[in-house]
Amino acid sequence: MTTVLILGGGGMIGQKLARSLTTSDVTLFDIAFPPDGAPEQQITGNIADPAKVQALAARRPDVIYHLAAIVSGQAETDFEMGWDINMMAMWHLLNALKAEHDASNGTYVPKIVFTSSIAVFGAPFPEKIDDDFLTAPQTSYGAQKAGCELMLSDFSRKGFVDGIALRLPTICVRPGAPNAAASGFFSGIIREPLNGVQAPLPVPDTVRHWHASPRAAVGFLRKAAQLDTEVLQGRRALNLPGISVTVAQQIEALRRVAGQDAVKLIQPAPDDAIMGIVRGWPQDFAPQRAQALGFEAEDSFDEIIKVYLEDDFQK
Amino acid sequence: MTTVLILGGGGMIGQKLARSLTTSDVTLFDIAFPPDGAPEQQITGNIADPAKVQALAARRPDVIYHLAAIVSGQAETDFEMGWDINMMAMWHLLNALKAEHDASNGTYVPKIVFTSSIAVFGAPFPEKIDDDFLTAPQTSYGAQKAGCELMLSDFSRKGFVDGIALRLPTICVRPGAPNAAASGFFSGIIREPLNGVQAPLPVPDTVRHWHASPRAAVGFLRKAAQLDTEVLQGRRALNLPGISVTVAQQIEALRRVAGQDAVKLIQPAPDDAIMGIVRGWPQDFAPQRAQALGFEAEDSFDEIIKVYLEDDFQK
Repeated sequence: MTTVLILGGGGMIGQKLARSLTTSDVTLFDIAFPPDGAPEQQITGNIADPAKVQALAARRPDVIYHLAAIVSGQAETDFEMGWDINMMAMWHLLNALKAEHDASNGTYVPKIVFTSSIAVFGAPFPEKIDDDFLTAPQTSYGAQKAGCELMLSDFSRKGFVDGIALRLPTICVRPGAPNAAASGFFSGIIREPLNGVQAPLPVPDTVRHWHASPRAAVGFLRKAAQLDTEVLQGRRALNLPGISVTVAQQIEALRRVAGQDAVKLIQPAPDDAIMGIVRGWPQDFAPQRAQALGFEAEDSFDEIIKVYLEDDFQK
Repeated sequence: MTTVLILGGGGMIGQKLARSLTTSDVTLFDIAFPPDGAPEQQITGNIADPAKVQALAARRPDVIYHLAAIVSGQAETDFEMGWDINMMAMWHLLNALKAEHDASNGTYVPKIVFTSSIAVFGAPFPEKIDDDFLTAPQTSYGAQKAGCELMLSDFSRKGFVDGIALRLPTICVRPGAPNAAASGFFSGIIREPLNGVQAPLPVPDTVRHWHASPRAAVGFLRKAAQLDTEVLQGRRALNLPGISVTVAQQIEALRRVAGQDAVKLIQPAPDDAIMGIVRGWPQDFAPQRAQALGFEAEDSFDEIIKVYLEDDFQK
C-alpha cells in the first residue's frame, strides 16, 4: 500500500485530498487540525522545526504532498515567519529526505508534489502568461514559492527526490471561514452571499484573476503524484489550467446561479493593502504544457460556483 | 567616503574591482587572498559562517559587492557545499543586514551588487534569450544563483536592503591558472596559447556561448552600484550585454590576433562531464533592459582578446 504524507494536511485542500486517497496509507501533518477533520492519522507540529521535519522524513513515505504554508497576506506582514515556513521548511525537508536517500544507498526517492502558486509571477504581464514567462514575484509569498521550486528542481535533478511543483490558480470557492490570504475575497464574494451573508469587495470589479475550484486542485495534486516526471524534461514547475474572469464576471455568474438577492449582499469596501498585493498578480494564462499533460480545470465560473454548491454548501 | 565591502574580494574580479575603487574605503572578505593582491584591508573567513557574516554586516558598509561563490563545476560535485556557500550564505547575509537595518530604525539600507550568472537559464532556449525568459536552471550553481536573486529582490522590495543582481556573461579571458569552473576552457583556449602553452578543448567547436571581459565585468559592477534601482521597477535581476560566439569563432579571433602558431596549441580533449554542463547553458541574448540602462560590453571577440593582452598578459 502506498504510504502518503500530507504536509499542511489540516488545511482545506489537505483535508479534501486526504478524503480522496481511499486506497493509500495516509498520514497528515499540520500545526492544527479541524475538530471534524478527515479520519487519517494526524501528527501535530511546526513545519519550520527541522527536528520535526527530520522525524517525518525518517518515516520514508512514498509520496509527500507539501501543502504547508502561511498565506500571502500573512507572509507580507510577518516577513520572517513567511520565509521560515514557506521557504526554509522546504530546505530542511529536502535535506532530511536527501539524508534518508543517502542512508538507503539511493533506493529511497520520494515523490514530492508541492503546491506552488501563480504568485511566483509579477507584473508587468503579457496578455496571457505562457510557459516560458519569467518568475519575478512582487510579494514575499511568491518569492518564497519560487525559491522552493528552484530547490525542489535541483534536488530532483540530482535524483535525491522526485519533485513536481504545481502553480495553483487561486482556489475558489474556498469553503468555511475567511482566511488571511489577500485573495480571500475572490471566494468571499461568492460564498458569503450564497449563505445569506454580506461580503466586502476590497477591489474594483474590473480586477481580472485566474481561478480553479478545490475539486480541480485535488485533481491536479493526484494527477501530479502519478505523473512520470521524465516528461517534464527538467522543468518541474507547471502552470495549471484555470478560468480567467473579472470580478464583474464572477458577480454575473453568481447572479445566474443564485439571483439578484445574492448579488446585493456584495458590498464595495476598498482596501489599499489588498489592492496593492492583487495588482501584482497574474490575470490570464496559456498553460499549454499542463494541458498537453492532461491537467484539467473548470470551463466557466458558473461551473466553479456549482462545484462549491455540490461539494461544500451546507444548508 | 563611501565604505565598500567586497565579498569574494580575493577572487579575480574582486581584486580587479578593488583596484578600480580608488576613491572609496574598501574592505575585502574571502576565504583566502593572493599573495600579491590588492592593498586594501583584508578579512579572512568563510562566507557560509553565519557569525562571520553577522560581524561583516555590523560594519554597516554603504556598498556590498557580493561576488563570493564556488564555481559551477564544484557546485555540481560538492552538492552540499554549493548550496551552503552559493545560496545559504546570501540568506544569512540578508538576515544580518536586515538586523542592522532594524537596529538603525530603518536608516541603514545598504546597496548590494550581487554577481548572478547566465547559468540561471536552462535549455531549451529561444534563439536569443530576452528579458522575460524563465529561469529554469539545469545546474546546482544556476539554481543557487536564481534562489539568491529571489531573496535579494524580496528583501529589497521590503526596503531592508537595496539590491541588484547582475547575470554576468561567462568572463573571458580569465587571467592566471585554470579554475574548477566548467566554463574554464573558454578562457583556457585563448590564454594558454597566447602564453605558448597547450590548451585542452573539452567540447566541439560548434558550441556557442555568451562572453564579456573582466574589464567589462568590473564596469558592470561599478555601474550597478551607482544605479538608482527605482528604474528596475521591481525586476532586480539583469541580463547583461556580451558577445555570442562559437568556439570556432573564438579560435578564428585568436588566429587573427596571434596567428596560426597559437591556434595549433589548442588540443581537442572531449570531456562528457563538461559537455553535460555546458549543453544546458545559454548561447545568445537580447539584453534590452541593460542596454537601455547603459551597460556596455565588448563588440567582438577580437576586442575581448585585446583586453586580455592590455590588462593581464605578462611577457
